[in-house]
Amino acid sequence: MRILIINGPNLNLLGTREPEIYGSTSMETFLKELINEFPNTEIIYFQSNIEGEIINRLQELDYDATIINPGAYTHYAYAIADCLKSIKKQKVEVHISNIYQREEFRHKSVTAPYCDGVISGFGLFGYKLAMIHLLQQ
Amino acid sequence: MRILIINGPNLNLLGTREPEIYGSTSMETFLKELINEFPNTEIIYFQSNIEGEIINRLQELDYDATIINPGAYTHYAYAIADCLKSIKKQKVEVHISNIYQREEFRHKSVTAPYCDGVISGFGLFGYKLAMIHLLQQ
Amino acid sequence: MRILIINGPNLNLLGTREPEIYGSTSMETFLKELINEFPNTEIIYFQSNIEGEIINRLQELDYDATIINPGAYTHYAYAIADCLKSIKKQKVEVHISNIYQREEFRHKSVTAPYCDGVISGFGLFGYKLAMIHLLQQ
Amino acid sequence: MRILIINGPNLNLLGTREPEIYGSTSMETFLKELINEFPNTEIIYFQSNIEGEIINRLQELDYDATIINPGAYTHYAYAIADCLKSIKKQKVEVHISNIYQREEFRHKSVTAPYCDGVISGFGLFGYKLAMIHLLQQ
Amino acid sequence: MRILIINGPNLNLLGTREPEIYGSTSMETFLKELINEFPNTEIIYFQSNIEGEIINRLQELDYDATIINPGAYTHYAYAIADCLKSIKKQKVEVHISNIYQREEFRHKSVTAPYCDGVISGFGLFGYKLAMIHLLQQ
Amino acid sequence: MRILIINGPNLNLLGTREPEIYGSTSMETFLKELINEFPNTEIIYFQSNIEGEIINRLQELDYDATIINPGAYTHYAYAIADCLKSIKKQKVEVHISNIYQREEFRHKSVTAPYCDGVISGFGLFGYKLAMIHLLQQ
Amino acid sequence: MRILIINGPNLNLLGTREPEIYGSTSMETFLKELINEFPNTEIIYFQSNIEGEIINRLQELDYDATIINPGAYTHYAYAIADCLKSIKKQKVEVHISNIYQREEFRHKSVTAPYCDGVISGFGLFGYKLAMIHLLQQ
Amino acid sequence: MRILIINGPNLNLLGTREPEIYGSTSMETFLKELINEFPNTEIIYFQSNIEGEIINRLQELDYDATIINPGAYTHYAYAIADCLKSIKKQKVEVHISNIYQREEFRHKSVTAPYCDGVISGFGLFGYKLAMIHLLQQ
Amino acid sequence: MRILIINGPNLNLLGTREPEIYGSTSMETFLKELINEFPNTEIIYFQSNIEGEIINRLQELDYDATIINPGAYTHYAYAIADCLKSIKKQKVEVHISNIYQREEFRHKSVTAPYCDGVISGFGLFGYKLAMIHLLQQ
Amino acid sequence: MRILIINGPNLNLLGTREPEIYGSTSMETFLKELINEFPNTEIIYFQSNIEGEIINRLQELDYDATIINPGAYTHYAYAIADCLKSIKKQKVEVHISNIYQREEFRHKSVTAPYCDGVISGFGLFGYKLAMIHLLQQ
Amino acid sequence: MRILIINGPNLNLLGTREPEIYGSTSMETFLKELINEFPNTEIIYFQSNIEGEIINRLQELDYDATIINPGAYTHYAYAIADCLKSIKKQKVEVHISNIYQREEFRHKSVTAPYCDGVISGFGLFGYKLAMIHLLQQ
Amino acid sequence: MRILIINGPNLNLLGTREPEIYGSTSMETFLKELINEFPNTEIIYFQSNIEGEIINRLQELDYDATIINPGAYTHYAYAIADCLKSIKKQKVEVHISNIYQREEFRHKSVTAPYCDGVISGFGLFGYKLAMIHLLQQ
Repeated sequence: MRILIINGPNLNLLGTREPEIYGSTSMETFLKELINEFPNTEIIYFQSNIEGEIINRLQELDYDATIINPGAYTHYAYAIADCLKSIKKQKVEVHISNIYQREEFRHKSVTAPYCDGVISGFGLFGYKLAMIHLLQQ
Repeated sequence: MRILIINGPNLNLLGTREPEIYGSTSMETFLKELINEFPNTEIIYFQSNIEGEIINRLQELDYDATIINPGAYTHYAYAIADCLKSIKKQKVEVHISNIYQREEFRHKSVTAPYCDGVISGFGLFGYKLAMIHLLQQ
Repeated sequence: MRILIINGPNLNLLGTREPEIYGSTSMETFLKELINEFPNTEIIYFQSNIEGEIINRLQELDYDATIINPGAYTHYAYAIADCLKSIKKQKVEVHISNIYQREEFRHKSVTAPYCDGVISGFGLFGYKLAMIHLLQQ
Repeated sequence: MRILIINGPNLNLLGTREPEIYGSTSMETFLKELINEFPNTEIIYFQSNIEGEIINRLQELDYDATIINPGAYTHYAYAIADCLKSIKKQKVEVHISNIYQREEFRHKSVTAPYCDGVISGFGLFGYKLAMIHLLQQ
Repeated sequence: MRILIINGPNLNLLGTREPEIYGSTSMETFLKELINEFPNTEIIYFQSNIEGEIINRLQELDYDATIINPGAYTHYAYAIADCLKSIKKQKVEVHISNIYQREEFRHKSVTAPYCDGVISGFGLFGYKLAMIHLLQQ
Repeated sequence: MRILIINGPNLNLLGTREPEIYGSTSMETFLKELINEFPNTEIIYFQSNIEGEIINRLQELDYDATIINPGAYTHYAYAIADCLKSIKKQKVEVHISNIYQREEFRHKSVTAPYCDGVISGFGLFGYKLAMIHLLQQ
Repeated sequence: MRILIINGPNLNLLGTREPEIYGSTSMETFLKELINEFPNTEIIYFQSNIEGEIINRLQELDYDATIINPGAYTHYAYAIADCLKSIKKQKVEVHISNIYQREEFRHKSVTAPYCDGVISGFGLFGYKLAMIHLLQQ
Repeated sequence: MRILIINGPNLNLLGTREPEIYGSTSMETFLKELINEFPNTEIIYFQSNIEGEIINRLQELDYDATIINPGAYTHYAYAIADCLKSIKKQKVEVHISNIYQREEFRHKSVTAPYCDGVISGFGLFGYKLAMIHLLQQ
Repeated sequence: MRILIINGPNLNLLGTREPEIYGSTSMETFLKELINEFPNTEIIYFQSNIEGEIINRLQELDYDATIINPGAYTHYAYAIADCLKSIKKQKVEVHISNIYQREEFRHKSVTAPYCDGVISGFGLFGYKLAMIHLLQQ
Repeated sequence: MRILIINGPNLNLLGTREPEIYGSTSMETFLKELINEFPNTEIIYFQSNIEGEIINRLQELDYDATIINPGAYTHYAYAIADCLKSIKKQKVEVHISNIYQREEFRHKSVTAPYCDGVISGFGLFGYKLAMIHLLQQ
Repeated sequence: MRILIINGPNLNLLGTREPEIYGSTSMETFLKELINEFPNTEIIYFQSNIEGEIINRLQELDYDATIINPGAYTHYAYAIADCLKSIKKQKVEVHISNIYQREEFRHKSVTAPYCDGVISGFGLFGYKLAMIHLLQQ
Repeated sequence: MRILIINGPNLNLLGTREPEIYGSTSMETFLKELINEFPNTEIIYFQSNIEGEIINRLQELDYDATIINPGAYTHYAYAIADCLKSIKKQKVEVHISNIYQREEFRHKSVTAPYCDGVISGFGLFGYKLAMIHLLQQ
């Protein structure tokens, strides 16, 4: 199984940016750990701060399922939402922090209706939970 | 570790009610499966249709962590939210369906701000993901 | 035919509470009258001030159709709405007063979308109209 | 007793328009049936697509009570509402479909506050229920 | 000078309808009085319950100025508003009652932005004030 | 092919009313031009300022397709919307001006959801575009 | 009869401020004219930019009726509204410009519900219309 | 005099729950103090987490006045509001914390319109103030 | 202890203004009574209809605690709110009537978040309750 | 004449994505057809999923008119709207589906106020209608 | 050049009030500094807690430009806004704190549309920036 | 000191685009001027129409402070806002025009809460004011 993990804007700064919210582990470190834990799964990683590049990557369709953390785009990027809607694969939305504990505008997700499910608030472990879900099926 | 699973209103009907949304497995069957998979964990189950009884149960504090699916109370029961807020234990909110794919009023959760995280849209498997999260720590 | 009449909060006070709005007949007196008028129909009556107990009663499914007056729960009890949605029987919502002539918040019904129809404003006679509807089919 | 039944816009198409919602009986057929069932009551029927003509008809006052289905005018025709308010007779609002199960804008009725009661969702049988109500008094 | 007085829906009932709000003088009686008081002015009167007929009348343009009381159409009839906007004559909006003392929906006027001024709350005397304004110029 | 062109309120004044917005060509002149350009198509024209008469005309069903410019009724006439919904023919909504460049209330169309498409902002040429669309199929 | 004319903030600048909206006549000139026209009426004039001073003046009660133009306070000064409510005299609200033709926030009047009527859009002549109304009674 | 003190959901935890907000005195300790201070008054205490049980208790009517702290139910429990409305006794609403200093949803009280007055923000001392009010009359 | 009682706009009329709401006791009479009851407390009284004068008075800081009834300013005077926020003394907000039983705009208090507590609906007795609170500490 | 056709996000998938909504013709095939039909017009095509690249392309100004389908950016991309506003050329907005028949958020267009007109709901034929409009002038 | 600096309510407390937000320099100290730095400019200072006095001062027009910090009046004082609008001089609005980082109601400015520009968030240095702007022209 | 000036979408057109709003000086010309005036400061300039590229540039962190004019992104680009929030440097938001004098949607800034201050409405001079602020510290 080939799983594409997509991270949206500012998530390239994991580990250094606001560690009290996002923890001090970088995505690179975490990805190594993830690859070790799921040796039989092919994991591809993509990060971009540009909304349209996330759409470009999603449209390549060279994966079986996607785990997407759209960052701030979660709350207004209908173009990503449209893209997710058009893709007939498994899709899981992950948020590192609990979006319900943050500002009002983060309680709304325009992308979630086009994902199979949402995992929010479990730190980087949320990506693992998404992996477990995808692999159990 | 002792984990209290709480299900809110109408979730006693799992397996028979709207199976196209909630699947055809009953909670009883699923719980057996869960207990088998996590033999070293003590799982307590409680279901009630009554908002105040859910608060009563939560206040007993005879558990280490709780997995709560407040059903329709998710969207307006501030009394449950207050109760969750007052409890200093691990708390995970689970929804069987993806609440973002349903009616507008279900997109809002008054209880989520007082849980550590939210898992929504993975069917009964969501409870397992919550268990995995609680046990990994 | 077996018809369950459910009355929600404060409707146990009919006849004494705000008689200028609700009239001076008690529900007991009215029920006797109703039973006399429909001798071939089995009428079961249930009243509770507790949201979850109304759900419990509805879930027993020991009836062919239900006439429900959810009282103030009409306007916010999504848990009752979910319960009604899951029940595949005839369901009629009745209000004694015309809810459109009262406070703004009473104009909205969260339960009505899951009933077959609504009768509002005809006093206790509304329950009879509901009976006539159920029996004519 | 003389009862004026008023149907608003598009209700002249009953029986052919969207039969899955409104049924396949025409108003003419139904009216014959109604007249047969209530031989001692004088029933007058009026239909118009024009808001002001409905007001004109209501103002003639040559009836003891009115059963009105304002169709789409229910939701915005304050001029009809004002007219109903000025008439001191019995007035029943009827809707063939359950307006709470349809689009958001149909949940609001500007005319209902000036009717004695509302019957919604019982198909053409709703007019009969209105008749029964008017005649029992 | 030729002045067209237009009254909208239900204003044909002046004198009999809700006299506690609108007074007990009929429009006919009042018009006679008005004609007596302004003998050098030609006063034309038109009343209709039909939105489009009011537009038809306004479009005839056989007058120098208009005094319009659009009744309930004041609050939603954008078609009358568009018509008033297209007419390059003096236009005064009159309301018999003070619209700010009544229901919320009556506080908004969609026609007023296209009239020169508004007189509200002075009973039938408001029409006289409008006349005085038109004749002083 | 028989095409019914319907113009709503105030559109009888085309050519004289606000020419800076609507141009100085009258509908009569334009219709002649249109008939010349489409000699093989039967074009019927109907204009009314009265909402219900537009519904009456639409219900006659003596046409293959309709091009409708509901004027100000676009924004609130749910009765016309209901009528369009019940008609199983091709329907095109045309606006002479670009409704998005005008007042806020004109950005909303209650009739558009029941038309096949909308053409807005091309002056009278918009009717031609609608014709071209209908004839190309 | 003794009439108190009260002008609110910025109305001391009449004649020089935005003459395209308010005209080029000063209030002083206009008052002289007014006094000449109504020689048998005692006219007192008061202007203040301070909300509370307007209340102070109104509370003196040394007048039979008041004509008040609260300027911008019209739209938010509930303290003036409360004061007007407590005074059992004739009260007329006047606006020089048509408040419905200006910014959205000016369409709302918090003081109007506590006046007998409102005159808006007739320039300084509006004060004369108010006088005529007060003296005719 | 017989006074019923009712506490709503989560108020059984007073003294241990969020002491920085609610203080460290338990309700039991406080009640003893209260009884000592008002030896001539009969004080009955009732606490429940269940909305309907609060209604049940209120309906018993075995008291002269009630002091009610509905907790989170303050903000949405229209069923309790309806119950309070139907009771013709003295009713005081008390909140331990100042509800205006907390989350937005706590600024609204659906029960307060049906109480005689509200005391909010004085800690447990608020109950004493309510007692003093009731006894001074 | 030195307590400053501040009354906002229109509260100088207590006893004569709307006695059915505010009672027939004047503030002067009530103050004498208050001074008698609390002989060991220095009570200073200040009333103004002017928002800024209330701020001026509050800023003098020659008191230990303040009891403030901002009248209509309660609902929009953010300048008073800012002033209260900057003062580090005990502050109690009092309303004579129950603000939740009156118009919608009175349900909101912009000053309450910066007071320690609020007492509303107990008539003039509310000031006494505030005194008792301040003196018990 | 040189016409720039710009397609926004996800429109590169035409023909394969949701064919029940967008049809099964690819943009490439359609463009060939378009070029054949308008041999004397130079047609340039540009598609991008990136908001800023669409702005970059528009700013090149190497065209006489533009036909733009901003896809999901229609509903929130004020940066594209600003760009369109600054360009003094003919601009037509095209939508393949009828945006009024889809989700609420699609009813709003932030770009339309800065285009000359809008064509929505005619499938790919909408681009042809836009061409016809541009060439007829 | 003569520059009038106006400070609104509570700004007389600068240096002592909430120094963590507003700093510990008093306005007097700062003004001396300002006068030293701009020796060729005449600086007049005015502070008032009273909305109408600010209007009075602005209307004196004895200055070439004004720097105004309306304090809390920024957010609701339309009377000051109207005054600013009527003055044809340079006007700069200054806020000491960044109003976008504070409560929601402070994000809105009713006075800013009538100033030339706004400077917010630079502490007392903001007044200097305003001076520099005014003097560079 | 090294200062990064970032301009958002369409700001590359300064000098040619809407000169009545933005002036006729190009950014290039202005930058030369700026560099001359601040010879001891290193000024880096970056402009992009692409939201994500602005984030990329900000994340390089090769500067001591940033002056950012996010153009239309000011009003909806939460991804830029998140980026600004994560950067612990001095940040000043500049707008050439006074955003409060323009369309409603421009009154809101999602980026401003994460800048130290905002300067709006002073034309290109606003960038100089920002420089002066940064250098004075």
